[in-house]
Parts: sequence; structure tokens; C-alpha cells
Amino acid sequence: MQNKSMLMIPGPTPVPESVLLAMAQHPVGHRGQDFNQIVSEVSQNLKWLHQTKEDVLILTASGTGAMEAAIINFLSFGDSILIGNNGKFGERWVNTAHAFGLKVDEITAEWGKPLNPEIFKTKLVNDKDKKIKAVIVTHSETSTGVFNDLETINKYTKAHGKALIIVDAVTSLGTTDLPIDEWGLDVVASGSQKGYMIPPGLGFVSVSQKAWKVYQNSNLPKFYLDLGAYKKAINKNSFPFTPPVNLIYGLQIALKMMKAEGLTQMFTRHEKLARATRAGIRALGLDLLAADESASHAITTVSSSKIDITSICRIMEEKFDIVLAAGQDHMKGKIFRIGHLGFVCERDILTTITCLETTLQLLGDTNIVPGKAVSEALKFLL
Amino acid sequence: MQNKSMLMIPGPTPVPESVLLAMAQHPVGHRGQDFNQIVSEVSQNLKWLHQTKEDVLILTASGTGAMEAAIINFLSFGDSILIGNNGKFGERWVNTAHAFGLKVDEITAEWGKPLNPEIFKTKLVNDKDKKIKAVIVTHSETSTGVFNDLETINKYTKAHGKALIIVDAVTSLGTTDLPIDEWGLDVVASGSQKGYMIPPGLGFVSVSQKAWKVYQNSNLPKFYLDLGAYKKAINKNSFPFTPPVNLIYGLQIALKMMKAEGLTQMFTRHEKLARATRAGIRALGLDLLAADESASHAITTVSSSKIDITSICRIMEEKFDIVLAAGQDHMKGKIFRIGHLGFVCERDILTTITCLETTLQLLGDTNIVPGKAVSEALKFLL
Repeated sequence: MQNKSMLMIPGPTPVPESVLLAMAQHPVGHRGQDFNQIVSEVSQNLKWLHQTKEDVLILTASGTGAMEAAIINFLSFGDSILIGNNGKFGERWVNTAHAFGLKVDEITAEWGKPLNPEIFKTKLVNDKDKKIKAVIVTHSETSTGVFNDLETINKYTKAHGKALIIVDAVTSLGTTDLPIDEWGLDVVASGSQKGYMIPPGLGFVSVSQKAWKVYQNSNLPKFYLDLGAYKKAINKNSFPFTPPVNLIYGLQIALKMMKAEGLTQMFTRHEKLARATRAGIRALGLDLLAADESASHAITTVSSSKIDITSICRIMEEKFDIVLAAGQDHMKGKIFRIGHLGFVCERDILTTITCLETTLQLLGDTNIVPGKAVSEALKFLL
Repeated sequence: MQNKSMLMIPGPTPVPESVLLAMAQHPVGHRGQDFNQIVSEVSQNLKWLHQTKEDVLILTASGTGAMEAAIINFLSFGDSILIGNNGKFGERWVNTAHAFGLKVDEITAEWGKPLNPEIFKTKLVNDKDKKIKAVIVTHSETSTGVFNDLETINKYTKAHGKALIIVDAVTSLGTTDLPIDEWGLDVVASGSQKGYMIPPGLGFVSVSQKAWKVYQNSNLPKFYLDLGAYKKAINKNSFPFTPPVNLIYGLQIALKMMKAEGLTQMFTRHEKLARATRAGIRALGLDLLAADESASHAITTVSSSKIDITSICRIMEEKFDIVLAAGQDHMKGKIFRIGHLGFVCERDILTTITCLETTLQLLGDTNIVPGKAVSEALKFLL
């Protein structure tokens, strides 16, 4: 049905009407006081969301632009770095680092499995000459719905003393507790179309004092994504280059909504939604790619040995207007992904599970016990 | 008065209600067919607007990001280039090129004066070894309202044979005839918050076949702004990284409006608006920074020896809610700029001139003849 689409993908995520309407306002001049005041408010609220006292820089870019900024501002040609790669976005870190001439030591895990922190530990402990300049980790791997144990990897990085810890928090920020200052995370990149509840178009980067010191000596060429220019500008509640004014209007409203909900409540909500989704999926006889202990709170990835995955997605969209995300690269046709991050409530999970149940029945699955999956999901929601 | 602001600045420019409302739609998934269809339409219409058969690439970035992409995709470390610099945005080309280790030969002119094409000619003719890899020119210099004679500089570049011609068309695209294929312009960069009539957040780059050949050997590091990835994706009506879906909705509507108006009509409208503005400004006894023969059709820059410029801007905003743009850098307090590009009609010019007239009277200018400025402006509008 036209205009009835329900997005259950890991981005763009659903956007509240109040955010959409805020974006439909006429842009003001980005050098005027009215806009400065909005930026001042947004900037304070971004620090709250990031649990940091440092500036959170706002880029006109997708999450990939924020990831690139996280590399090129804090590293130099030929620097050695460790990158955790267990999915599409870990791979993107590797490709970005290679494009900028860095020496990459990849720590891999099979798609669907978490990175093993002990491999990081060994490499960091053995690096007596302190050649490793950074450790890069994807917190919630969007391509698989796997959480990596950032807290432990970060502890090993801190014990190394020299290396910066650089984090892709694209689908974890706002969905999972990520105490940036408390953990001492140096550079954290994220994007607007995820937990932020606004459309794509903005990238965010938080930067520690330690990282700003390293920035002074970074020799990778940069101009548009030179974070020093953004820092100088944000201290005057402004931007070095024209910002996407209307998306900032949306961000302002979304951050107010987040503050009204509260950080703990946001994190608890996402965890409950993830658990309920997983319980429902299990009850439907479908398989979960990630194990419980490494499951993202933002995305649930589903596979099946009994029912064709592509057919499930097709019927969900054609009959129920629910959009699920397909697998990427070699996972295409083997998995689908349910995004339950940002502006998603309990009702959305029950709706999705109910429609999945009907879809499986339509596809000839005779093992379905009507209502069972919703009942199982509900156990985590009541 | 709240929400009554009228933007007469060179960007963000006014946005049609239909574009704002299109942007307030719920985002769809950027990997779905519905979105592919929008991208297909937008892509065709961008070619029409750019007067080119080649792909026009859409970046999630401001105009500066598009300018950087225009450099880093087609040049290599240590390349020699000529850059015309007669304003803030010419200077930005120079700063960007320096950031990427290029050997820059600057051809300068005083702010307010156009670049002299003959200096380009001499340097290009003398370059027997064909060391000059590119000539970079700002078509309409937003900081001064000066048009550079791109057509002539381009002819000299073509005679050189080797060098690419790279153009900042940020405030000329959609406002001034710029026949990209006919002239053989290699790389043309622009941004959404100008003649496009949509809010900031998108950058555009058109690329010639000759430039794509050079791209193959460019060794400047790039990932997020690697145009090869965008070209590959746009051929499938898609994007390499998540695009700002809602801005694309707006772009779709704005391009439809442009097509309904027609290219010639758009260019004629902007030229008339510029002439009318200049006539009105002259009749008010204010001074024009740019000479008639090098005046941009998008921006008129005004100075005055008799009335304080900052006071004019203040009263225009406080009393009439008309926002004018201040001068940048050393022109601060010495000039103001009237943007009349994009969604601007004859009424807006008469309004601005009328309010300027009253403002000058309020500031004690006793030489004002009421109604004269509007009459002079009208001569170009009837």
C-alpha cells in the first residue's frame, strides 16, 4: 500500500513526525544568531548522549565519512594499526585504512561471531616498541548484528598505553551504554540515520584530549574532513562549511526526545526489544546468526535452513509493507536483518513477529503454532 | 517577527514549500526499488541541468566536499596546477590544493575584480613541457559577486591540450548558462543550497570522459570522496554509502520545477534579477563592488562611502526580517551581499530595494528620492 512502508532495517530507521516536520521548516542563515543558538543546544545534548565532556563534531557526511575522519585526523602515512574485522563495516575500516597507506594488521572472525579480545591482547602486549598507533573496533557490526566486546578490547588498548582506541558506534550509539569518558574511548564515529532517529546526512565524531594531541602530528592529507576546523567552529557554535540546516533542525528535536526518555531507559528499551525479537524468532523455528552473549541490541540477524530467506523478505514487503534488510556480500540470500533501533517501540516488534508468523505459514511452514512467537516475545516486554 | 525571515543571502537560499514538504516524508530504504526509481529520475534531470551526457555524481557533503572531490580524484602528489584566486572561494581552492601537496601557481585579482584570462593564457602557452595538470576557476565568486570569464580561460586551457579544467560552479549552476559538454568542462562542482533551491547537504560533481581517464592514475588518497565508487553506484541508480534520502526527495521536486521553467528561462530570470538589483542599488546612491561586465547573476555586492554597512544589515533584519550576507574576512563591515539565486522572483527584488530605501532614510540619508530605486529596478523587469 502506498506510503504505508514500515522500516525495520538498520538505517534509515523510522523518523518521528515531530522530527520530519521540524525538517520541513524554512532554513535560516547558518551564520546567524538564531542558528548559533540551535547549534549550542544541539552541541550540549550531543555531549550528554555521548557521555563525554569533549566536543562532538558534526559532519555533513554519512557514517562512512565520519569513519574516514576518525582515521585521517589521528594517523600518519605508514602507521601500524590493528583493525577488528568480522563483517562489512569492519571490512570498510580496512579498506579506508588501506586507501590512506596505513599498515593494517587485521584481526578477523567469521561473520556472525564476535572478535576475540585475547588476540588483541597478545598483539598489544607483544608490541614492546609501541609501534601500534591505533586499535579500531566496530562496536555493533551492522552487517551481522554482532556486538564486539569493546570494553575488554579497550582495556587491553589502555594497558598498551600508546595506541588510540577508535570506535565505529554507528549502530550502538543511543542504543547501548557507551560511556566514552569513563572508558576513555579516543575517537567514536556514528551516523544520524540510526539511534539518532533522524534521516541520513549527518556524521558525528567525538574526540578525546589524547587524540587531539596526536592530531597535531597527523600527516594524512585532509581538508573537508579536517576535524580541527570543526572543533574551532563548534566552540563558536558554528561550522567551518555550510551545514545541512534542516537536518540540524531534526537533530534538535530528536535529542530533546532522547533527553525526555533518558539514557538508561533508551538502553533498556533497545535491550528489551532485541531480546523479545530473538525470542520470537526462535519460537518461529528460524535461526539466529549471533549468539545471545554477542547479540547487538540494535539489529537481529536471522537465517533459516527450512525456508527461503529471500521469499520471507518479499512477502513481508509485498503483503505487509514491512521492509527487512537483506544480507550483504556473501550473506546475500542467506540472512535477513531486523533493525530495531531508534524510533522503535514494543508494538513494532510484536507487529513484525506476527507478520513473520503469517509469512512463514504462507510459505508452507506447517510447524507454526499460531500465537506462540508473540507469546515468547512478550515475556521480555511485560 | 518570528518565522518571518526572508533570506536574501547566497545560501542557504529560499526553499519552495513543495520541496520542504517533500523532505518531510518518511525516508524509504536507500537499497530499495522505490528509491532506485527516484535516483534514476534525479540522475537524468541532473544531466539536463548540467547540459551534459555524463553522470553527475551526488555526494553527501557541502560544496566544499564537492570541491575537494574535484581535486583529489584527478590529481596526484606534487602535480602543478593553476588556480584563479580572487575571493574567499578561490582561496579555498588554494587551501585545499595545498592540503593535498599540490604545487599551486596562483593567479590572483583584487577582491571585486575578475581574473584576467590573459595571464592564464601566458602561463599555459609557456608550459611547453605540459607540466600544468589542471586549471581551477571559480565561475561566480560568492564572496564578491564577481563572474570570472570561464569561457575564455577554458579556451586557453583547451589550447594547452593536457590540463584539465576544474570549475567551482557553486553559485553559477542553475543561474547562468554553463554548457558543460559544449565547452568541454572536465570537472564541475556545485552545492544544493544555491541555484538548486534545496537546503544544504548535497554536493554535485560532473566529470568528463577525459577526466575519468586521468582518474585512473590519480594517487591522492581517498575513500569517502572516491568518485569512482559513486560512478559505479549511480549506474545502478544507487549510492556507495547511505545517501541523505530526504534531501534527495527535495532534489527530485526542485529539479521538476526547474524543468517546468526551462533552462533558458532560468538563466534569463537570474540575469534580469541581477540587473534590476544593480539598478536599484545605484539609484539608492550605494556602490557596486563588481563592474557591470563582470557581475554575477546570482549575487550583488554592495559597498558605501556614505552609510555604515553593518547598520544597513542590522536594520534590514531587525525591522524588515530581510537577511543580507555580510562581507567575509577583510571585507567584513565593508560590503554586504544580496543573494538573488534559486527560488527568487521579481517581487523579492522590489521588496528588498524598497526596504533598503527605507533603511537608508532611517539611517539619515537625505538624498533618497522615494520610489526612484524601485522605478530604476523595474526597468529591467517589465
